[in-house]
Amino acid sequence: MPDTVKYVLDESRIPKAWYNLQADLPRPLPPVLHPGTKKPVGPDDLAPLFPMELILQEVTTERDVPIPGPVRDVYRQWRPAPLFRARRLEKVLQTPARIYYKYEGVSPAGSHKPNTAVPQAFYNREAGVKKLVTETGAGQWGSSLAFAGALFGLDVQVFMVRVSYDQKPYRRALMEAYGARCIASPSNLTQSGRAILAQRADHPGSLGIAISEAVEIAAQNDDTKYALGSVLNHVLLHQTIIGIEAMEQLEMAGDYPDIIVGCTGGGSNFAGIAFPFIGAQLRGGKKVKVIAVEPAACPSLTRGRYAYDFGDTAHLTPLAKMHTLGSTFTPPGFHAGGLRYHGMAPMVSHLQELGLISATAYHQTKVFEAGVQFARAEGIVPAPEANHAVKGAIDEAIRCREEGTSRAILFNLCGHGHFDMQAYIDYFGGRLKDLDYDQKELAMALAGLPSVVEPA
Amino acid sequence: MPDTVKYVLDESRIPKAWYNLQADLPRPLPPVLHPGTKKPVGPDDLAPLFPMELILQEVTTERDVPIPGPVRDVYRQWRPAPLFRARRLEKVLQTPARIYYKYEGVSPAGSHKPNTAVPQAFYNREAGVKKLVTETGAGQWGSSLAFAGALFGLDVQVFMVRVSYDQKPYRRALMEAYGARCIASPSNLTQSGRAILAQRADHPGSLGIAISEAVEIAAQNDDTKYALGSVLNHVLLHQTIIGIEAMEQLEMAGDYPDIIVGCTGGGSNFAGIAFPFIGAQLRGGKKVKVIAVEPAACPSLTRGRYAYDFGDTAHLTPLAKMHTLGSTFTPPGFHAGGLRYHGMAPMVSHLQELGLISATAYHQTKVFEAGVQFARAEGIVPAPEANHAVKGAIDEAIRCREEGTSRAILFNLCGHGHFDMQAYIDYFGGRLKDLDYDQKELAMALAGLPSVVEPA
Repeated sequence: MPDTVKYVLDESRIPKAWYNLQADLPRPLPPVLHPGTKKPVGPDDLAPLFPMELILQEVTTERDVPIPGPVRDVYRQWRPAPLFRARRLEKVLQTPARIYYKYEGVSPAGSHKPNTAVPQAFYNREAGVKKLVTETGAGQWGSSLAFAGALFGLDVQVFMVRVSYDQKPYRRALMEAYGARCIASPSNLTQSGRAILAQRADHPGSLGIAISEAVEIAAQNDDTKYALGSVLNHVLLHQTIIGIEAMEQLEMAGDYPDIIVGCTGGGSNFAGIAFPFIGAQLRGGKKVKVIAVEPAACPSLTRGRYAYDFGDTAHLTPLAKMHTLGSTFTPPGFHAGGLRYHGMAPMVSHLQELGLISATAYHQTKVFEAGVQFARAEGIVPAPEANHAVKGAIDEAIRCREEGTSRAILFNLCGHGHFDMQAYIDYFGGRLKDLDYDQKELAMALAGLPSVVEPA
Repeated sequence: MPDTVKYVLDESRIPKAWYNLQADLPRPLPPVLHPGTKKPVGPDDLAPLFPMELILQEVTTERDVPIPGPVRDVYRQWRPAPLFRARRLEKVLQTPARIYYKYEGVSPAGSHKPNTAVPQAFYNREAGVKKLVTETGAGQWGSSLAFAGALFGLDVQVFMVRVSYDQKPYRRALMEAYGARCIASPSNLTQSGRAILAQRADHPGSLGIAISEAVEIAAQNDDTKYALGSVLNHVLLHQTIIGIEAMEQLEMAGDYPDIIVGCTGGGSNFAGIAFPFIGAQLRGGKKVKVIAVEPAACPSLTRGRYAYDFGDTAHLTPLAKMHTLGSTFTPPGFHAGGLRYHGMAPMVSHLQELGLISATAYHQTKVFEAGVQFARAEGIVPAPEANHAVKGAIDEAIRCREEGTSRAILFNLCGHGHFDMQAYIDYFGGRLKDLDYDQKELAMALAGLPSVVEPA
C-alpha cells in the first residue's frame, strides 16, 4: 500500500440528502423554550430570525432532508471532500491502528463551515431575504458566510469577537474580500453591545455577546435574518454531509470505524462526522466509540452543567437544554477561537446524556504538539481547533499500540491552519500557555443559569 | 448548465510522465555557460548543486519524462487538481468568452510549487542527499520545499528575502511547522550574505542574494544540495503536469483554449499551464495565443534584455540566456513577492524570442481589483501572483465582449491568497501603490551584464 491513500468520490456521489439524527433518537430532544413564557417555542417565535425552511429543518424528524440542487451545485466546488488514510502518521506512531481522516480544509474558506453557510444563504435568498447578520469567533464561520453570501448575492454583516478581530486581521480581510462587513464586538451598533461597553470599554468580547448583537440587528429589520454557524439542529444537519461521504469512502476502503473523534466547540463539525455513524448504530448497525474532544479552558461537555440556558449573553435567544458553562462565562484567550463557546449543541449534549458519546478535554500545548506531529507526517497543517481532534486520534492510536490491537480510527480534520499561524509561532516560541478557566467565574456563571421548570 | 462547473479527473489519470517542450522546439535553447570559462557547462559542473537525475532532466530532449511512482504517490494527496469553468465570472463580465481556470491552490502549501518540490526532494533522497537548501521570496516555494522535505525525511534550510521574512511571519511559521529552518537573507551565515551586509546592514534582500547564499551553502557541503523553485528547465518540466491535466479536463468539457494566460515571475506556473499546449501546436495542433502577465514593477519580459546573465547577485551560478533586468536589480516592494525575480526562465524567454508567446505588464492596483472581482464571483481569494493571471484573463474576456466573439480562455490560478491577506488589507485601505521600478537602477543593472561572446 502506498503512503498516500486518498479515497475520492465522484461528484455524482455528493449526497442528495442530509441525515437527520432526530429520526433515530431513542428519546426526543428536550424542547426549546421561550425565554419569557418558558413554554416550548413554535415556528412563529423563530420567524423574525430565520427563514421558514430552516425553522422546519430545526424540528423535523424526517430521516433524509433533501439537499436543494443549487446547494449541491455550490458544494461541487470542493466536495466530495477527500478521505485519507494517515499511513505516514501510523508509521511514526508505530501503531497497528488504521487512522483515517476526512479533510474539510479543501473548501474555499478553509474549513467545514461552508457546508452550512451555503444552504443557509440559499434558503434565505429563496425567502427574499436581502441581508444576513452573524457573529464569529476565530473567523472561520464569518468568512464562510461571507463566501456563501457573495455567491447568492446577499449582504453579510459579521460581528467578530473583539479579541479575535484584533488578533486575526487576515480573517477579517478574507470576509472583506468576499464583500462582507466585519465589525468588532462589543460594538456601538446595538443596545447589547453598548450595555457591555458601558460596563467595560475595553471588553474583549465573547461569542455570547456577538450573538446578542447579531440577533438584535436581525430582529429589528424585516429584510435581515440571523445565521448561526453551529449549535442549532439545522446547522448540525447540514454538516452531516461530512459523515455521509466518509461512510461511502470507508466502504471503498473496505473498512468501518471502531472509533470516531471530532473536536467540539458548538458541536457542528463533530456532529457532521459522527451523526451518520451514530444513526447507523441506533438502527442496529455496528457500535462505534465516539469521542468529543474539547479544550480544557472551555470544557462545556466535561465540566458544564446539563441545563436550560441562553445561547447569548444578553438573553435575547430562546432557552435550550445543553451542557453549558453559563451564558456569562468568558473563556481565557487560548488559540482555538472556534471552540470558545459557553454551550454545546443541544443534540450533542443529548447524545452525551444518552451515553452514545463520551468527551475528553486537553490543554493547548499538547494539542499543538499533536498538530505539528501530524503536519510533519501528513503534510497538512491543521487549524488549532482541528488539532484537538488530531490529539484525540493520536492518543487512541497509541492506546492501540499499547494494547496491541488494530482498530479503525476516523477523525475530522475540519480545517487548515493557514490563518492561524500566529498560534504556531507562539507554540514554537514556547509562548503557548496551558490556560485554565477561572473556577470562580465558572461558579458564578453557573449560579446565574435561568431557573426553569422543565416541561414533563 | 449549473454555475459551478468542475472537471475532475480520476486519480488513476494523474499523468505518468511530464512533458518536455525541449523535444519540440524549432530551435534548441542557447547553452548554459560556465561563469569562468564562458563555455557550455557539462553535467559535472552542476553536480555540486543538484543530483544527477535532475541535471539530466535539465538537458534531456526526450518528450516524455516518466514521473516516478513515489512522486505520483505524493501527488495523489491533492492531484489531479480541479479545472473550473468560471460561469459566475462570465456572467458578471457579461462576456461570451468561455473562461476556464486550473486551480493549484488545493495543494497542502496552497500553490503549484509542490509539483516540483516533491520530485526534487525525491531525487535528492534517492541520491543519498541529507539536506536541501534554497531561497524563497514570498514563501510559497520555501514552504513547499519544507512540505516535501518533511515527507521524504530531508532537512530543509530556507533563505528568505529579508523584507518578506519580516512582512510574512506566517509563511515562515508554515515552514517551521513542516520542520524546516528559515533564515532572513542577507544573513551572516554565508560569505555572500556578509558581503552585502557589510555594504548595508539593513539591506532588504532580494531573490538574487538569497540564491547566492543557498548556492554557497550547498556547494560547500557534500551531503547538501541546492533546490530552485523556478527558472530551470527541470522545474518547468515538473510543472507541466498542470497543463497535461488541463488538456484532459478541457477534453471532458469538449473545448480547447484559444487563449492561455499565466503570471510570470521566474516562469514556472506559466510554463506548467502553457507548455503542453505550445508543444501540441508545434507538433501541428491548434494555434493558441499564450500571454505571460508580469508586474510592471519587475518587467523582465517586457522591459528586460535578452542576454546572458547570472541567476544570482553574487555571481556564483552559471550564465543563462534569458530576459533579465540585471542580476543586481532590486524591484520595489510590491505585494506579489513570487514575481520579484530579475530574470525569466530561459525556456520562457526563448519562446518569446520565437514569437510563440507574448507578454504584458500590469500595475498592482488593477491586478487586485481583478482579484477581488474574481473572489466575489468564484468564491476563491487568489494569491497576489495569481491575480496577475486573473487580470489578464478578465481583460481578454472583456475584449471578447467588445468584439462579440466567444473564445475559450484558460488561465492558471496558481495559488490561494490565505497567506497574503495583508496585501488585500492594504488594497481595501487604499494603501496599495502602483509602484514602478527605478529607471536609473535598471539602466545600471543592465550596464553590469556580463560580456559574453555567444557560442555559434
